[in-house]
Amino acid sequence: MTGENKESKRNPADEARVQVAVDAAGGDVGASVMVPGVVDALRRDASIDVVLYGARQEIDRELDDLEAGDLPIEIVPCTQRIEMGESPATAIRSKPDSPITRAMRDHREGRVSAVVSAGSTGAMVAGSLMILGRLPAVDRPAITTVIPTLQSRYVLLDVGANVQNTARHLLTFGSMGSLYSKAILEVASPRVGLLNIGEESSKGTELLQEAYVLFKESGRNFVGNVESKQIMFDVADVVVTDGFTGNIVLKLVESFGGLLGDIAREWLAHEKTDGSGGSGALGGLLGRMDYAAYGGALLQGVKGTPIICHGASSPRAITNAVLTAKKLIEFDMPAKLQAELAGTD
Amino acid sequence: MTGENKESKRNPADEARVQVAVDAAGGDVGASVMVPGVVDALRRDASIDVVLYGARQEIDRELDDLEAGDLPIEIVPCTQRIEMGESPATAIRSKPDSPITRAMRDHREGRVSAVVSAGSTGAMVAGSLMILGRLPAVDRPAITTVIPTLQSRYVLLDVGANVQNTARHLLTFGSMGSLYSKAILEVASPRVGLLNIGEESSKGTELLQEAYVLFKESGRNFVGNVESKQIMFDVADVVVTDGFTGNIVLKLVESFGGLLGDIAREWLAHEKTDGSGGSGALGGLLGRMDYAAYGGALLQGVKGTPIICHGASSPRAITNAVLTAKKLIEFDMPAKLQAELAGTD
Repeated sequence: MTGENKESKRNPADEARVQVAVDAAGGDVGASVMVPGVVDALRRDASIDVVLYGARQEIDRELDDLEAGDLPIEIVPCTQRIEMGESPATAIRSKPDSPITRAMRDHREGRVSAVVSAGSTGAMVAGSLMILGRLPAVDRPAITTVIPTLQSRYVLLDVGANVQNTARHLLTFGSMGSLYSKAILEVASPRVGLLNIGEESSKGTELLQEAYVLFKESGRNFVGNVESKQIMFDVADVVVTDGFTGNIVLKLVESFGGLLGDIAREWLAHEKTDGSGGSGALGGLLGRMDYAAYGGALLQGVKGTPIICHGASSPRAITNAVLTAKKLIEFDMPAKLQAELAGTD
Repeated sequence: MTGENKESKRNPADEARVQVAVDAAGGDVGASVMVPGVVDALRRDASIDVVLYGARQEIDRELDDLEAGDLPIEIVPCTQRIEMGESPATAIRSKPDSPITRAMRDHREGRVSAVVSAGSTGAMVAGSLMILGRLPAVDRPAITTVIPTLQSRYVLLDVGANVQNTARHLLTFGSMGSLYSKAILEVASPRVGLLNIGEESSKGTELLQEAYVLFKESGRNFVGNVESKQIMFDVADVVVTDGFTGNIVLKLVESFGGLLGDIAREWLAHEKTDGSGGSGALGGLLGRMDYAAYGGALLQGVKGTPIICHGASSPRAITNAVLTAKKLIEFDMPAKLQAELAGTD
């Protein structure tokens, strides 16, 4: 980390400060979304320091535009960048000066306590595994995300760190999801459901039948199998599935989120025309189903806090990802997960 | 088949007539939905004869209410009924006088050319396999359905006849889906996509990577892997997946369909209040995404035409299922599928 004029901006008396790394080059539009998102997060929460990794000129331009010279932001200039199509492991190895690789190394050295990126999910997963490493008690890390619904929201995992999982992986995902629900959504005793094609324990693949028994015996707050037609209607706080199915569900739900946005714009345009004003009940409904409100997905099961944002994130999604990073750091997620899994094994 | 006064209602000179069996006891509400649906279908298309299986009194009451005595409907009274929770194979064996069992037997004997039921999906699949049997060229039958989208609609399979499939099963599903798209949606050269978590051929499980190669080599109109975020946006005419994933996708899409309906009601109530009237663009949008318009799902790969309707079907959905049955009979789906698969093997 180059570390220029960071200390001068920080209040050394404040022991509760957290340091968050942000990949300024990631996402579909890079610095023009990432920097405004970061600036807004720092203006809302004065206890966060951010280290931005990327092209110095672009970052400086954005910071100047936002008159953000007073904020506790440090820049680590990077000369490389991992593109979306690259082989993740090869990219991590062959681009040591890319934002993801450098931020992961600084995370491992303890200079930052979380890494936020809207870049390649594969590179974030590969970088986390290769540089941070797995927690001793975890066989397979999983990507954990929050899905907003009309009445509430739920934690869904794995949404794509794996393509296939065993019953025991799924049981570990249950622990990860429960901790995430407690840490971020403040659910005291999260209800855990297993995504399946029917509610009976005999439904689905042999693997899911085996997982059902493991969950049942685990003493967790297990609500049984949940069907995809129920998950948007507050049937569980945590929905556990393998990485393939979770990825299919996440992307389908997101595409419907986009559709709802189109409907909202149509409705609002219509209201404007007839002069009745106000967004009414649909506005409230869409507010509740706003995906940007949860900002990012957490790769759980590695020695650190890597937060993966959607490539098409808005500045607001990045702001929320940085604020979520702070919550996760203060919760001490990796240590809690390791302790829980080691204790229950 | 008891066969009372059927011939008197039929015009023997009309060679193009088709006979469709309908389970009047199936679905969440039975005869009160099934009979009005059938009556409407027969009033729209005078070339269809329907045989209704169920409790005579209930059926007669519905027919009287609808003043449908002139329609070519025959009743086969049944004293048993398969309930939703029953083990499908056991139910088929132990309830020989249930509508599904009797209709399947009449279908096998050639007395009817299709069976429509909104009862237990499991019983329809078990009854088809046990009584009709598989086509020689088919290892695994699949349930094929149509998903309406904003711009168009697509064929999705398998949505639940299987829980796990091989790459070769998926290739056969591609043939089934293409034929269905040609027969029912009149797509001349259906684009076939493989549901996966990324577009590249290297994505997903080994099974999907193998299936990608089989499709690529098959000479079909294969558009490659399609992601769940794309399927609602006209990326393929046929989306092929295993029965587990397909069931998850179908039920999630249907639950969003219900959500869109809620939004529509809210919007319409709002428009009514401010007196602007008319359902506007949202009404058109919802009309295009109306699930009842496609009525039922076809179990493909057996020696017959079993059509499985949603338990919560409306009379309109049943009407469309009966009209779809006629199209499928005229297309001669089982023979065409057997010929295509035998020819390409």
